[in-house]
Amino acid sequence: MTANQSFKHALMQKDAQDPLYSFRERFQISEGLVYLDGNSLGPLPKSTPARLAQVAEREWGEGLIRSWNSAGWIDLPQRIGDKIARLIGANAGEVIVADSTSVNLFKVLAATLKMNAGRRVILSQRDNFPTDLYMAQGLIGLTGAHELLLVEAEDIAEAIDQNTAVVMLTHVNYRTGALHDMAAITQAAHAKGALVVWDLAHSAGALPVSLNTAQADFAIGCGYKYLNGGPGAPAFVFVAKRHQPKFVQPLTGWLGHANPFAFDATYAPADGILRALCGTPPVLSMAALEVGVDLMLEADTNLIRRKSLQLADDFIALVEQRCGRHGLQLVTPREPALRGSQVCFAHPQAFAIMQALIANGVIGDFRAPDILRFGFAPLVVRFADVWNAIDTLARILDECVWDQSVFTQKGKVT
Amino acid sequence: MTANQSFKHALMQKDAQDPLYSFRERFQISEGLVYLDGNSLGPLPKSTPARLAQVAEREWGEGLIRSWNSAGWIDLPQRIGDKIARLIGANAGEVIVADSTSVNLFKVLAATLKMNAGRRVILSQRDNFPTDLYMAQGLIGLTGAHELLLVEAEDIAEAIDQNTAVVMLTHVNYRTGALHDMAAITQAAHAKGALVVWDLAHSAGALPVSLNTAQADFAIGCGYKYLNGGPGAPAFVFVAKRHQPKFVQPLTGWLGHANPFAFDATYAPADGILRALCGTPPVLSMAALEVGVDLMLEADTNLIRRKSLQLADDFIALVEQRCGRHGLQLVTPREPALRGSQVCFAHPQAFAIMQALIANGVIGDFRAPDILRFGFAPLVVRFADVWNAIDTLARILDECVWDQSVFTQKGKVT
Repeated sequence: MTANQSFKHALMQKDAQDPLYSFRERFQISEGLVYLDGNSLGPLPKSTPARLAQVAEREWGEGLIRSWNSAGWIDLPQRIGDKIARLIGANAGEVIVADSTSVNLFKVLAATLKMNAGRRVILSQRDNFPTDLYMAQGLIGLTGAHELLLVEAEDIAEAIDQNTAVVMLTHVNYRTGALHDMAAITQAAHAKGALVVWDLAHSAGALPVSLNTAQADFAIGCGYKYLNGGPGAPAFVFVAKRHQPKFVQPLTGWLGHANPFAFDATYAPADGILRALCGTPPVLSMAALEVGVDLMLEADTNLIRRKSLQLADDFIALVEQRCGRHGLQLVTPREPALRGSQVCFAHPQAFAIMQALIANGVIGDFRAPDILRFGFAPLVVRFADVWNAIDTLARILDECVWDQSVFTQKGKVT
Repeated sequence: MTANQSFKHALMQKDAQDPLYSFRERFQISEGLVYLDGNSLGPLPKSTPARLAQVAEREWGEGLIRSWNSAGWIDLPQRIGDKIARLIGANAGEVIVADSTSVNLFKVLAATLKMNAGRRVILSQRDNFPTDLYMAQGLIGLTGAHELLLVEAEDIAEAIDQNTAVVMLTHVNYRTGALHDMAAITQAAHAKGALVVWDLAHSAGALPVSLNTAQADFAIGCGYKYLNGGPGAPAFVFVAKRHQPKFVQPLTGWLGHANPFAFDATYAPADGILRALCGTPPVLSMAALEVGVDLMLEADTNLIRRKSLQLADDFIALVEQRCGRHGLQLVTPREPALRGSQVCFAHPQAFAIMQALIANGVIGDFRAPDILRFGFAPLVVRFADVWNAIDTLARILDECVWDQSVFTQKGKVT
């Protein structure tokens, strides 16, 4: 056997022994497609369309307005939140589903500035996901009394001082896949009296997250990536129990009111996590999210993590074995403990190469300016997919079949 | 013929001559149900489930991440916004669909405070829909430099002065159904240098709205009432073209960025209405909203208004004819030009009466403390429904079949 043949054989063996293998059957993935973009949009659970039809035809169509109570629509934000809590090391009553990740970030960030009044700095990482930085900038534009300080990932702990109101970080970097040590950074922040907001967009559902073990303060996250909740699925927000009584957020919509149906003229926050709610939730999208979360809850997060790292290890090794001469630069940490569930390579022709991959049935994504990003959602990605992806990548690179004239930066939603 | 028989006959005649009659067939309404709550949750268009299935199975399931471009998901907010613009007297490029009504109110309210810096008052109506007041209170909690001044409806124009940054009003009152003169109040505000934000929750789709004729500045509205977009459907926001270059809103999520896919670290607003976007839109709920809006666009808004007022006139007359001795107090203006598309009566036993109506297949809603609310969505409500609703109401009142022991205030989502 050649080295390639033996690598391929080993991958097939891993699929045969994979305890998560059967989960793939629960999702709709077109035959022949290699989908390495579940970190951008998780695939469709096969049971979602039937649930959507039920919510539309039975609950909305027949139940009409009565379904807010009879079908439990009014409880969806907390019911799904309690389920997500189990995926991220939180307790029931600490997580709620609402709005978008960006809007939820605004809520918790504003709350931390109130809780740490007198401190003026929001500290973040220079290459944090841009919308997080933008939301901080928008909030600062309103308060007029704060500033956003951006440092490199490795300088964060040192940059925390008595001016730091809050440290705002994404647990797994969207571009590099690098994973922060949540417990260590949280501890460093608390030692200086700062609070921490964790963005779990690229970690919830992808690896074990232990918010309460890490003594996390606040977190937000996304429903449409590893939770498979559908395009633009509602997001979630975590507020540690100990902070809830003093959690005052500015998007004080009626569903966060202590008594929304009394129609008082003055806002009074609900007890507990309900005060993180704002307006009426999009029920159809919420229902789809619940299907994705329920499916994720059937899997063991530790098995997910183990498979995710194996897939990525094999992907890196096989790229280096088969595409080594083409100048792909690994930008994801090689050390498994330091990465999330994605592998990224830089290449000057990254955009054109990714277009060629997609045209050949291997879907990853491009991140400006030069990143090829491959995500490993362990419930749907097979070890055989690693082989097929790199077989295609090697052919594209060896034969230069990508369109070298394409230099325009284009993109799509993460 | 008795007076009752002749009233009933006249109503049947009106159905026979109603040019909008056939629209009812396009919605799912259970046989025998009288649905007078389309102002709280519009009914299910029969074509919505198929569209949802298509978006889930084809666009999400097969297209996966590619559908952001290939299925036009990324254009949904503006595409549906342009359609809603036609219902509310706005131009293409002035309306966008995003987030919830509450969140959109926060955006435009914050923007007006920037535009009218130096003025400290947000002026509103004491019995405005509470979430609007709450959002203003939340915003003020952040800026620390403004106050919310609440006056009675009839005192609004007089209360506008050189301290007024913005007048925030709901076009049709959720509790009384009273309709504001949008053009007159807008003119009065402009004369004093104030801006106006109109909440169209109870008017968009229910009557002709002429934002640009009234020289409106900003508006927000709801997708799940008269637009039939489904429970918790995404909301919309209108920013008059002339204000867009100086429209700076604080929820600066990535989709409102001038170049969201360049992943710059600094926010720069997109041109035009796109800068009102924040996070990723919930595609499934957006798709359902589009079906409702498309259906609404097939109907003539002037015919909708005419029928809505006829239904309400007949409803008021018949209640007075048949239930006159039971102490129901009309709280909606009797003059058609002064009301929206709902009729409300106060009664000390309103909650229990509404429970009895619902149990007997007549769905309106209760609004604390003592309001029976009946909405007339002219695409689905028949004149025969007016007869059947009041026939049931009269029987309930005559026979006192409601549970007089029920005094607890309960409710559900408007």
